[in-house]
Amino acid sequence: MGLAMDTAALQAFLARDFGQVAGDFTVDSVGSEGLVLRLKVTERHLRPGGTVSGPSLFGLADVAMYLAILARIGPVALAVTTSCSMDFMRKPAAGRDVLAQARVLKLGRSLAVGDVFLFSEGVPEPVARAGLTYSIPPAKT
Amino acid sequence: MGLAMDTAALQAFLARDFGQVAGDFTVDSVGSEGLVLRLKVTERHLRPGGTVSGPSLFGLADVAMYLAILARIGPVALAVTTSCSMDFMRKPAAGRDVLAQARVLKLGRSLAVGDVFLFSEGVPEPVARAGLTYSIPPAKT
Amino acid sequence: MGLAMDTAALQAFLARDFGQVAGDFTVDSVGSEGLVLRLKVTERHLRPGGTVSGPSLFGLADVAMYLAILARIGPVALAVTTSCSMDFMRKPAAGRDVLAQARVLKLGRSLAVGDVFLFSEGVPEPVARAGLTYSIPPAKT
Amino acid sequence: MGLAMDTAALQAFLARDFGQVAGDFTVDSVGSEGLVLRLKVTERHLRPGGTVSGPSLFGLADVAMYLAILARIGPVALAVTTSCSMDFMRKPAAGRDVLAQARVLKLGRSLAVGDVFLFSEGVPEPVARAGLTYSIPPAKT
Repeated sequence: MGLAMDTAALQAFLARDFGQVAGDFTVDSVGSEGLVLRLKVTERHLRPGGTVSGPSLFGLADVAMYLAILARIGPVALAVTTSCSMDFMRKPAAGRDVLAQARVLKLGRSLAVGDVFLFSEGVPEPVARAGLTYSIPPAKT
Repeated sequence: MGLAMDTAALQAFLARDFGQVAGDFTVDSVGSEGLVLRLKVTERHLRPGGTVSGPSLFGLADVAMYLAILARIGPVALAVTTSCSMDFMRKPAAGRDVLAQARVLKLGRSLAVGDVFLFSEGVPEPVARAGLTYSIPPAKT
Repeated sequence: MGLAMDTAALQAFLARDFGQVAGDFTVDSVGSEGLVLRLKVTERHLRPGGTVSGPSLFGLADVAMYLAILARIGPVALAVTTSCSMDFMRKPAAGRDVLAQARVLKLGRSLAVGDVFLFSEGVPEPVARAGLTYSIPPAKT
Repeated sequence: MGLAMDTAALQAFLARDFGQVAGDFTVDSVGSEGLVLRLKVTERHLRPGGTVSGPSLFGLADVAMYLAILARIGPVALAVTTSCSMDFMRKPAAGRDVLAQARVLKLGRSLAVGDVFLFSEGVPEPVARAGLTYSIPPAKT
């Protein structure tokens, strides 16, 4: 299975289509195994107490899967998240970036399914796991 | 079933414990039926195109359920989200606040379960539905 | 919103298309509010200890939502369950049927979303809650 | 990490505590990577058309995760499924057993979290993916 977009193309897509949050993320790698997206944790991702907030983790998982799908099908800007189920397992470690490992499990004509594991950088036990589905708009002809 | 906290107490809790995001939310009502939390939508909750972002919707659902549980058990600052499953059904309407209706479905000793419906203000069809579970820390004695 | 199938039509559909399990279920009611499906609990739905098994509860929720969708769109035999998230909250009461209250929350062209609450008959607190999504095959023309 | 139960101990536990359905399942393997449980597909697991039914897939995922937890903590008969989110991706292949690969992702004092992938034997693409959580009863002292 070839890839339709590499890390540079994905990063450029992010900058163009996710303007406001693009600076939060770096595509660390992409391949047939999946995609790794980094959340560059700063003050505004934290809850009081210094832990990365739930919405920041959700956003990371969602963007990672979105890009993992685009890496396969190319820059279809309109794919929409239809569902997300997420288990939060451990507090993210303080002072570390969070990495998302996203895998596409199914790429159908109208629906894509994948899972994402979130890790604090350098910590082997996952922070959270998410299953996500996206609807893919019909190709225009 | 009596309530342990009213809207004023919940709003004060929010201001104290969720400093950074407290200004985004207003507790519109709380009662035995559940709690309504308002996301006062501003520029920074939007994706390009003007729709409220997924992380903003997730954060709204999470905070609404958190407060609905606290309204029942009092200000236990440590309850932790353990899982969330969310179905995204419709685009939020442009230029409107989003309201979360949160209900506690089970309040056990160590686990609470609830659901949340999100609506664009004035629009009857739901934007999203979430099921959330929280672990409740053992009471200190 | 009109209904495409009434209880008799749904029960007949069940008998024809779900042969093996149709005898387990009765459509108690259907209306614009949703559908109530009854699991007539017998020995083979029970786990040791006498509680209704997880797979029986899952099957009840799935069939209830399937029929709730058909009540709206008519007998489209091919709609497929694409995801289910379920919270199990309380043990079903011994010796009672389990009732599923299913609601369609969104009926799109290719995706339907709904939720289901399960109750032991006569007990107000829910046994479980499920969110389900179905893909709807394109109409043949 | 050592294992508290091997395949023979797990199979014996299944026979004793899941009487009615124990014959459906074989523990193919267990190790530090996880557990593989086989659903020996027979007529009564099928829907009309010959595909393995949703409740059979749910039951397989649930029992697989249950046993994967027991392999780690020993025969604690009372762990209870608290939530399950499942994505159904492909029809199971006709005439083949279904294999569940279950992994424990978190084993806390009161909550265990894991994921399960289901495969038709010999087919590399997954049939379904499930995330499951279990509450673990407090140890008696």
